[in-house]
Amino acid sequence: MTDNSFGTIFRITSFGESHGRIVGVVIDGVPPGLNIDRNFIQNELNKRRPGVSNLSSSRMEPDEFEILSGVFNNSTTGAPLSIIVRNEDVKSFHYEKIKDIFRPSHADYPAYVKYKGFADYRGSGRFSGRITVGYVIAGALAKLILKDYGIIPFAYTKSIGNVWDNQQYSCENINKLIALRDSSPVNALNLVLSNEMINEIETVKKENDSIGGTIKCIINNVPPGIGSPIFGSLESNISRAMFSIPAIKGIEFGIGFKAASMRGSEHNDPWIIYQNKIITSKNDAGGIIGGLSTGMPIEFTVVVKPTASIGKLQKTINIKVMKEVDLKLEGRHDPCIVPRAIVIVEAMAAIVILDELLKSGKINTSNCKEVF
Amino acid sequence: MTDNSFGTIFRITSFGESHGRIVGVVIDGVPPGLNIDRNFIQNELNKRRPGVSNLSSSRMEPDEFEILSGVFNNSTTGAPLSIIVRNEDVKSFHYEKIKDIFRPSHADYPAYVKYKGFADYRGSGRFSGRITVGYVIAGALAKLILKDYGIIPFAYTKSIGNVWDNQQYSCENINKLIALRDSSPVNALNLVLSNEMINEIETVKKENDSIGGTIKCIINNVPPGIGSPIFGSLESNISRAMFSIPAIKGIEFGIGFKAASMRGSEHNDPWIIYQNKIITSKNDAGGIIGGLSTGMPIEFTVVVKPTASIGKLQKTINIKVMKEVDLKLEGRHDPCIVPRAIVIVEAMAAIVILDELLKSGKINTSNCKEVF
Amino acid sequence: MTDNSFGTIFRITSFGESHGRIVGVVIDGVPPGLNIDRNFIQNELNKRRPGVSNLSSSRMEPDEFEILSGVFNNSTTGAPLSIIVRNEDVKSFHYEKIKDIFRPSHADYPAYVKYKGFADYRGSGRFSGRITVGYVIAGALAKLILKDYGIIPFAYTKSIGNVWDNQQYSCENINKLIALRDSSPVNALNLVLSNEMINEIETVKKENDSIGGTIKCIINNVPPGIGSPIFGSLESNISRAMFSIPAIKGIEFGIGFKAASMRGSEHNDPWIIYQNKIITSKNDAGGIIGGLSTGMPIEFTVVVKPTASIGKLQKTINIKVMKEVDLKLEGRHDPCIVPRAIVIVEAMAAIVILDELLKSGKINTSNCKEVF
Amino acid sequence: MTDNSFGTIFRITSFGESHGRIVGVVIDGVPPGLNIDRNFIQNELNKRRPGVSNLSSSRMEPDEFEILSGVFNNSTTGAPLSIIVRNEDVKSFHYEKIKDIFRPSHADYPAYVKYKGFADYRGSGRFSGRITVGYVIAGALAKLILKDYGIIPFAYTKSIGNVWDNQQYSCENINKLIALRDSSPVNALNLVLSNEMINEIETVKKENDSIGGTIKCIINNVPPGIGSPIFGSLESNISRAMFSIPAIKGIEFGIGFKAASMRGSEHNDPWIIYQNKIITSKNDAGGIIGGLSTGMPIEFTVVVKPTASIGKLQKTINIKVMKEVDLKLEGRHDPCIVPRAIVIVEAMAAIVILDELLKSGKINTSNCKEVF
Repeated sequence: MTDNSFGTIFRITSFGESHGRIVGVVIDGVPPGLNIDRNFIQNELNKRRPGVSNLSSSRMEPDEFEILSGVFNNSTTGAPLSIIVRNEDVKSFHYEKIKDIFRPSHADYPAYVKYKGFADYRGSGRFSGRITVGYVIAGALAKLILKDYGIIPFAYTKSIGNVWDNQQYSCENINKLIALRDSSPVNALNLVLSNEMINEIETVKKENDSIGGTIKCIINNVPPGIGSPIFGSLESNISRAMFSIPAIKGIEFGIGFKAASMRGSEHNDPWIIYQNKIITSKNDAGGIIGGLSTGMPIEFTVVVKPTASIGKLQKTINIKVMKEVDLKLEGRHDPCIVPRAIVIVEAMAAIVILDELLKSGKINTSNCKEVF
Repeated sequence: MTDNSFGTIFRITSFGESHGRIVGVVIDGVPPGLNIDRNFIQNELNKRRPGVSNLSSSRMEPDEFEILSGVFNNSTTGAPLSIIVRNEDVKSFHYEKIKDIFRPSHADYPAYVKYKGFADYRGSGRFSGRITVGYVIAGALAKLILKDYGIIPFAYTKSIGNVWDNQQYSCENINKLIALRDSSPVNALNLVLSNEMINEIETVKKENDSIGGTIKCIINNVPPGIGSPIFGSLESNISRAMFSIPAIKGIEFGIGFKAASMRGSEHNDPWIIYQNKIITSKNDAGGIIGGLSTGMPIEFTVVVKPTASIGKLQKTINIKVMKEVDLKLEGRHDPCIVPRAIVIVEAMAAIVILDELLKSGKINTSNCKEVF
Repeated sequence: MTDNSFGTIFRITSFGESHGRIVGVVIDGVPPGLNIDRNFIQNELNKRRPGVSNLSSSRMEPDEFEILSGVFNNSTTGAPLSIIVRNEDVKSFHYEKIKDIFRPSHADYPAYVKYKGFADYRGSGRFSGRITVGYVIAGALAKLILKDYGIIPFAYTKSIGNVWDNQQYSCENINKLIALRDSSPVNALNLVLSNEMINEIETVKKENDSIGGTIKCIINNVPPGIGSPIFGSLESNISRAMFSIPAIKGIEFGIGFKAASMRGSEHNDPWIIYQNKIITSKNDAGGIIGGLSTGMPIEFTVVVKPTASIGKLQKTINIKVMKEVDLKLEGRHDPCIVPRAIVIVEAMAAIVILDELLKSGKINTSNCKEVF
Repeated sequence: MTDNSFGTIFRITSFGESHGRIVGVVIDGVPPGLNIDRNFIQNELNKRRPGVSNLSSSRMEPDEFEILSGVFNNSTTGAPLSIIVRNEDVKSFHYEKIKDIFRPSHADYPAYVKYKGFADYRGSGRFSGRITVGYVIAGALAKLILKDYGIIPFAYTKSIGNVWDNQQYSCENINKLIALRDSSPVNALNLVLSNEMINEIETVKKENDSIGGTIKCIINNVPPGIGSPIFGSLESNISRAMFSIPAIKGIEFGIGFKAASMRGSEHNDPWIIYQNKIITSKNDAGGIIGGLSTGMPIEFTVVVKPTASIGKLQKTINIKVMKEVDLKLEGRHDPCIVPRAIVIVEAMAAIVILDELLKSGKINTSNCKEVF
């Protein structure tokens, strides 16, 4: 029912449309006394901003955020923050032309059924990736709180098309990983593979096509015992968050689908004592057992489907005349959404982890400076 | 917070422990007037019951359910149903012996941290697969309602170890698929592969080891437009449900992780008109786009990790003496949990789909006999 | 946790502060296809607007609302509506001067404890009656939907100070009642008593004091069987809504507190058949029995405490110096909040009743034009 | 939707029927490590038990509770507790006889509409006061936790019929108040008035009638700053809880409805410094301002309507023949429910206050022994 809200204590409510006046978010449950680092938030938004490279959509959006409420003397107050970003570069005529045509692998048809034809179809309305502007803002706030605890959710491009980076990275030196990634136009960690990925995107772009990929996310320094068994498992909450991001079609934790062919003796992560701390000697579980954090890095991989909007000729139907038609999409589209989705994955991961820490009492709801 | 509850209108609350007196469930939001088919419910329970084959745990549980409330004159009343199953064959001495030893890939350590040592460790307590008895009961009720709408969630064993059944099955003749599956001791659809899977399980069993696998689930006849964009996406709710099942470590919808290497022109499912109905000519999306049902079968695959409990020697630690120790688990364990998990996957799928239909108003909360 | 959200299907999220940039509301669960009658919404807002009479605060606010999202072609789309009202006439210097002084019967002290001194104290921040601007907007939307079902929540001033209107009004001719009320500057139904109430307010105003009162609300045409027993009783949900309005300190349904001295034979409402319909011959239950609507008008009365902000000299403390001090409040205050609270009570009543109708399936979530 | 559940962190789910096998409750969010004082819980249940005096119903119920889950080694584990009480003295033939007759001021008619005739009518099913057995059990657990913080919710009979005890009691010596109350068969504090109240009940009983009353509840030692503004106000949550108790028709906080005729200068509670603590010199606000606790005792009064079930001849209708009929109720009924409702009011108050303390982080979710 509350399908536009997410989270329990740190709770966000999404609103706005791709080609409406704004996209925005209400963020409830932010402890009072958090200093608002506007540069950090803007920098996060810039990471998902379109129009900055020839690898992404040419829609030009400054994506400057405005805080409407919840901040006083540059500090959070305990009241809900409402933050908006205006839609500036709206060109809806492409959508006007095809408003009776259901774009393949877009939500046009089921949305038409659900909303009885009243949904705002311009720029895909509520189904647009532009909605994730609000996720990134809320995620930036979550990150600002988490970093006091040494928790820095980190995602990178694991694959684009057939170019895969299968190396296992340690998050011990997270800042080095961040620097590596930020120097790659596709947010990859390996320079050679990064260039191959760019090549992959440029190829499909030239052919008016698109390409999929995978994103890996690592969350360090999560203390053990966070999360819950049963319906509140960390996997449940993280997966729910990830599938709120358009185009995500799969998720696996730790070794993931490879576990299907493994034996228990191979998959089980032995507990060991290391520097007086209990850890596992490997992390096939992805830092989660029984729905709870083990204290090891939380690791998961999501698959991003190829962008549904492509310029290539496609078969589909026109609902008005109930006839099959040819469709060649115009407008501005990303040939590959993976690079821009990195910061969105991090944002939703940050929101989940912060909420879990708040639920566990490790971070106090009314004071964000306590330590665990 | 409500980590033991799941669902919005059709809402279940889980309680009980593996070696406590009972496991049980409260089921709220069941429309009044539903006839309780006790044989059907018991039959569902029998599908996950242990001790029935040499491929599963030898724990002998009759798993007979008792309805404590919510049923009057063999019909639901609109009141919450509470249903329990007694734990009969409880042998806790194996757990007493190792209560200070953290079993690898079990929740012992994070649970110890979260519950300060007070959790019921016997038979893994709340972290046991036995908790899913309540899921199956609630799922059976959901199925009883869904079948009036022609919806029959169907799952089968897609792989065990290295034996994979990659055939794409049509759910047009769902009863035939069910008959096929029910004739296989491992719930597979292909007789030859079924025997190979049995072989796989017997091999690891002999070696005191365990093996993983995958389960595919198909839900037919879901009308288009069910679900929501954003945080209430069908993928979000289905994945949350699946990760509530112990041992599930990944999920993919439709073509899933294969989408990573695909192009949009290849992955997009064209809309076509077939017998005056709008469908897609293929179903790589797994019946869900933009978080909404497309009217095509909903299809997803989950990965089941190899059972963590194995008889083989393992390294781990003893928390009391804070020392590394050797561990050889005794007790009764499943060498492969996949076959017994089939009905659990179906149950959770049924619960989600029924809840979505109720939320959409397609099934009325106060009358389960209306049609869409 | 979700303390700034209210409702289950029709769900509102409040944000904004009294002297911040805006006050606003997100409204989720609005069925698609509802025509937005802007004049109606603005007219509702005008009813709670300050500065329009010498009986209310002199703060001058145009209170013009801006719809930021959720409306397309002047119709709701099924997406969440976000609506804001800018704060124009903000004079915070009065609050600067007394920011270390806890105003008697204001939330200054407990808010200081809860928010560790970070709360926005200007104009009482989130504790201001100005927050109810969002309630009125959401309530106006709810009323627009309800009126298609003939449901028109109606409230009026039952008492101010010692002037009580104890007449029992029938809501058969609701439009006549509305006209009567709207002709009274204090929203009373009896002309003579209206003048006495005005007198009461003018008297306390001259003395730099304030006065309390009561508001009665009647909701007609609610079909029987709406609501729930136990925790979802109509009384539970209505009372929760009413106590979300600042200054409300009590509520009674039907005959209310008088029931304390009554006998069952006197209090019980006999069921009778009238024009082939089942009704009660009187309505001491206030239209609710067992938490469910009986089909009779829902009737309740709330008490509004006298405005806490008064110009008279008061004793209190200064937290900075931890000393008792004298306080004479300046600024702009209502000598009696009752007349302006009428539309707020109606708004919250409308929100609850609409939500209950949606939950009961009487109004479909995805179509606001179906009839019961 | 979750109409049978209440609370956010400390969350109870009610199930069972008056004449079914059991009544029960699931209690989620109980911190691990709480020692279960079974005598205390049983003693609480005994306070609402029928059949113990000639002032209450003659239904004989031992009301012995059974813990089905969530307790291990006599301590809570962090898992949900499920607790049931069997219905032993069930005599349903009275209800069989009148199952087509709508009892005045009972939920029979609206329940008939809501549940389409499928509800369990025996003993009023889910609408029976017997459901509150679960409240009392959960409340007893909440009290066990609260008492470590010195919080002891205390309720007493303020009035029965025309006998009112208007004295203002201080809760400084709460144990003395408890002793006084427990020595009165009607749970009054004043011996003379207690006898008059008994007289009042005996009089109506002789006449086959019933009588209403009021209950006052005082909660001491609640620290300041608990609760929330807006929709999560303490008044909102307490009132929602109270209206979950059958027969409650009104609630007022502090001076309550008397505030209607008061001036601000009279009603405002001045802040003073007393023994280095900030308090108010009086408590007309009932310990709550702006939805937050002030640190003063929380005080509220609820009105209990006269028992609807009376032996006197009443007019009503028979739904089967759709005719008006005479009704003389047989069966076992309380002439006045007030004395037995005292412990129920306390229980629901305890549940709300504990939940608020958990939400505020004053009591840690995973450790019930921390102090604020």
